[in-house]
Amino acid sequence: MHITKIELSKMNRIERLNLINSLSGIKPANLIGSINSNGQENLAIFSSVVHLGSNPALFGFVLRPRGEVRRHTHENILATGYYTINFVSTYFVQNAHYTSIKASEETSEFSLSALTPEYIQNFKAPFVKESSIKIGMSFKQELDIEANGTSLIIGQVEHILLPDDTMSNGGHLDLGELGVAGISGLNTYYSLKKEAQFPFVRDEYELSDLSQF
Amino acid sequence: MHITKIELSKMNRIERLNLINSLSGIKPANLIGSINSNGQENLAIFSSVVHLGSNPALFGFVLRPRGEVRRHTHENILATGYYTINFVSTYFVQNAHYTSIKASEETSEFSLSALTPEYIQNFKAPFVKESSIKIGMSFKQELDIEANGTSLIIGQVEHILLPDDTMSNGGHLDLGELGVAGISGLNTYYSLKKEAQFPFVRDEYELSDLSQF
Repeated sequence: MHITKIELSKMNRIERLNLINSLSGIKPANLIGSINSNGQENLAIFSSVVHLGSNPALFGFVLRPRGEVRRHTHENILATGYYTINFVSTYFVQNAHYTSIKASEETSEFSLSALTPEYIQNFKAPFVKESSIKIGMSFKQELDIEANGTSLIIGQVEHILLPDDTMSNGGHLDLGELGVAGISGLNTYYSLKKEAQFPFVRDEYELSDLSQF
Repeated sequence: MHITKIELSKMNRIERLNLINSLSGIKPANLIGSINSNGQENLAIFSSVVHLGSNPALFGFVLRPRGEVRRHTHENILATGYYTINFVSTYFVQNAHYTSIKASEETSEFSLSALTPEYIQNFKAPFVKESSIKIGMSFKQELDIEANGTSLIIGQVEHILLPDDTMSNGGHLDLGELGVAGISGLNTYYSLKKEAQFPFVRDEYELSDLSQF
């Protein structure tokens, strides 16, 4: 089956939306937690978290320009400078998906989705108690993507919260063992099973070069 | 287990590299195919493909500033304006991983990895014959990420090649059925199993708003 750019532009809008979102492949399922200056908590599901570097540890995520849920996340991150990235587990994918219901500013998506906000000392943004892997982030940079008005929000890792004894053999995590879910498209959730781990094949020079990434 | 930013900065370099790469979650495993003006083919594995929009259909991927493999991909894309994104299947993850061996400019990673270049009419860049899902891309924009010198390469979908009868119910693809692999960290590969597909919960206004993304 061959679909050209022209056929794609003529395709039914929803079909194209689903196909192109599926074609970006498997993505991490993350809940991004934030809070406004009045203490109103916000929680939104994202599948666009991307690794940008290890030293300093930087992650980005793509923010669409419109939409209530996304706007609250954006405003809160700019206002407080902090947010959390929480991994969705397969056992609560439905709860996590419910955070994408359009909610008023006064409604916390924690309540909508029956997930529990959790705080650590000296860090403003709420974590998701039910998540096995939680990351506290500080905002660093916003990059505009001219092509379609989205933006890449870049932050640095401040805190990592993990179950004990899950980090093995040199920093690796088994996402399958940890019950982590993946997303493809806008609304399809997958479980993960570790199949293979290969040696890192670059030579020492390359590896040393890589250490900052 | 709680790891702070300070503890992270003092961690063994390789352990930090593996941990932070694992923490960005499950990623798509893609082979990016390109060709230089002399007809020399290049193939490199990436796990940073991200969805940027559906209409026009835009994908980005993160390019590190150094490293032979990455540099050839970068130079070829700038020189020809075209490249391919090919999904890695679980049955050839080891072949795909071998493209990350540091190769000279004259060595094609297609040969190194025993994968087969495939072309379609009027499109310069090589696809991977063994991939179930293949996308032909045209280069649109390069965005510099100041924080660490990486860049986001943005391209538009020109061609989509899929097995017949795999696009179902409104554009969705079952990545598990298609044998698609995911990556976490730098070198751990996962198989995928579809667990749930929920209705898209935004209201009609929001959905219409979304149609360009």
